[in-house]
Amino acid sequence: MDTINIKKLAKELNLSTSTVSRAFRNNNDINKETKERILKRARELGYQPNHYASNLRERKSRTIAVIVPELANNFFLQAINGLEQVASTKGYHILIYVTNDNYEKEISFINHLSNGRVDGIMMSASGESAKEHNYLHKLKEKNIPLVFFDRIYEEIEAAKVTTDDYESSFQATEHLIQAGCKDIAFLVIHKNLSIGKKRLLGYRDALQRHGLPYREELVVDCSHELEPNEEILRQVLPTLKPDGLFASVERLAIAAYYVCQDLGIRIPEDLKIISFSSLEIAPLLNPSLSTITQPAFEMGTQAATLLFAAMEGGTVQAKTDQVVLKSTLVPRQSTGTAG
Amino acid sequence: MDTINIKKLAKELNLSTSTVSRAFRNNNDINKETKERILKRARELGYQPNHYASNLRERKSRTIAVIVPELANNFFLQAINGLEQVASTKGYHILIYVTNDNYEKEISFINHLSNGRVDGIMMSASGESAKEHNYLHKLKEKNIPLVFFDRIYEEIEAAKVTTDDYESSFQATEHLIQAGCKDIAFLVIHKNLSIGKKRLLGYRDALQRHGLPYREELVVDCSHELEPNEEILRQVLPTLKPDGLFASVERLAIAAYYVCQDLGIRIPEDLKIISFSSLEIAPLLNPSLSTITQPAFEMGTQAATLLFAAMEGGTVQAKTDQVVLKSTLVPRQSTGTAG
Repeated sequence: MDTINIKKLAKELNLSTSTVSRAFRNNNDINKETKERILKRARELGYQPNHYASNLRERKSRTIAVIVPELANNFFLQAINGLEQVASTKGYHILIYVTNDNYEKEISFINHLSNGRVDGIMMSASGESAKEHNYLHKLKEKNIPLVFFDRIYEEIEAAKVTTDDYESSFQATEHLIQAGCKDIAFLVIHKNLSIGKKRLLGYRDALQRHGLPYREELVVDCSHELEPNEEILRQVLPTLKPDGLFASVERLAIAAYYVCQDLGIRIPEDLKIISFSSLEIAPLLNPSLSTITQPAFEMGTQAATLLFAAMEGGTVQAKTDQVVLKSTLVPRQSTGTAG
Repeated sequence: MDTINIKKLAKELNLSTSTVSRAFRNNNDINKETKERILKRARELGYQPNHYASNLRERKSRTIAVIVPELANNFFLQAINGLEQVASTKGYHILIYVTNDNYEKEISFINHLSNGRVDGIMMSASGESAKEHNYLHKLKEKNIPLVFFDRIYEEIEAAKVTTDDYESSFQATEHLIQAGCKDIAFLVIHKNLSIGKKRLLGYRDALQRHGLPYREELVVDCSHELEPNEEILRQVLPTLKPDGLFASVERLAIAAYYVCQDLGIRIPEDLKIISFSSLEIAPLLNPSLSTITQPAFEMGTQAATLLFAAMEGGTVQAKTDQVVLKSTLVPRQSTGTAG
């Protein structure tokens, strides 16, 4: 069994070794039938290509790392799904690193990865409140491209794929104002992240534009977990009595739905709700949820495309492209608009 | 910078090299403050441990592969999340392989992985309709443990974590019968998988137990995609006029909700619906969805735990443990039961 190698296999099939090699690389520039013929014969002969060895020769791991703050989140899952679709067509695999929003973990992952384990890194950052991001410079020294998506470090020179957080936040707030809301609570998790700051600014500016006061107590700091959020909202909603609620993260809207159900607060009559969300079934909720829908899957594919461009260019620096994708406001019943 | 190594770092800190080493391994048996002190000083000195090299020495990649049929699926995502939580406490990382239910891809992944890229593999199978699974024997030869979860190959000797598909399917069908349904459609995607077979059998036996006929036309073959399913249901619902619908996969229930909305079919008055589902917000749907909830996250943690046991035991074979987790039937408004 072990004596079969790629040359013998190619000779048997009367093909060149490079054609045979392509069949094992998930490469698209090979005729489908030829590929199947090669793979079939290879199986019959018990031949398996030694990817690992050939990768070492090429100094390529054919692997991409994706670093995310959390996995239990539709947005990141859809982005990873987008990355996977791009990567698999290139014959690449994905290593997943979850920081749980822990800055130290991010540093440790980057140190670990700078040892050449992967060919490129796609990251949504966890350490924006920390000032020091010098550990990322190692990647450049080691020729490992980095692309940020969604959560970024402004000062780090790398390709970045984000959404129009300020504009869409402004629109969402304006949408609530136009629906008649005057006391709009803004639920946040990451006040300190650039993303949180931009969304907060959009909210503030929309209030100002429409002559409404900005009240700090209406900006509610929430948690990563579902349960503490329900507790927070159980206190906030009856005391502050907002008539509008803008959730900067999907899970905060979900928590609000549960709490409203429990407290007998009617959506949208007593409280109108809009949320950033990547939830595909927002139209099926009771009531259907008005959303700012971020193109999560597309962020994944775009960031992956930039990453492959940087990897294939073989340059030390990742391209400094800045892609800003547009989110879409979809009004539904939760803000009193036709669902 | 480069002259700093683990010995010098340990000496500087007046600690043993093994303590310092543990700090970089995400190991839990080290005092938290000590760990932070080590990591801080390491950063200051620009020291990074050469994991890759030490892994080669240990012949350990500290990586686990998870092979799934698809990523755009709550069930698999939650299972991966469970795996990640176990793996990260062990200092392991996860490589994701998506087969898109393509058997050839599964074979190619296994061949690729049998070259020692990972220390263990967790897999939900894609090739059950194929007869030949000999490519998996390579893993045993190479000392790479394999644990199946959810979709398994019965004849392959490996640890397996599944749910009680027959029993829960029987219960779901019985629940619809007790709610007054007589013509119960069963929506399936994977008739040929062991999982599909078991669920179908549970459905058949429940009908029989209650003296209802089994009608082949009520077993509806559906697709992986959302849109074809809506088309299929748009044809099936008005012609067969079922009064109960049992979806073996979550997305089929979602498609049914959309089609019922369009066609003016009232849930639960005209049609009662129950579905296998891992959707956390099933209670918030309109109407709230009755579910058979599989413990997806727990399947991930259990399978991961078995995998680490096999890896740490250093045995050639994965344990032949068979874990069957219980699903939970949660009646809600969609079957006419209190939500």
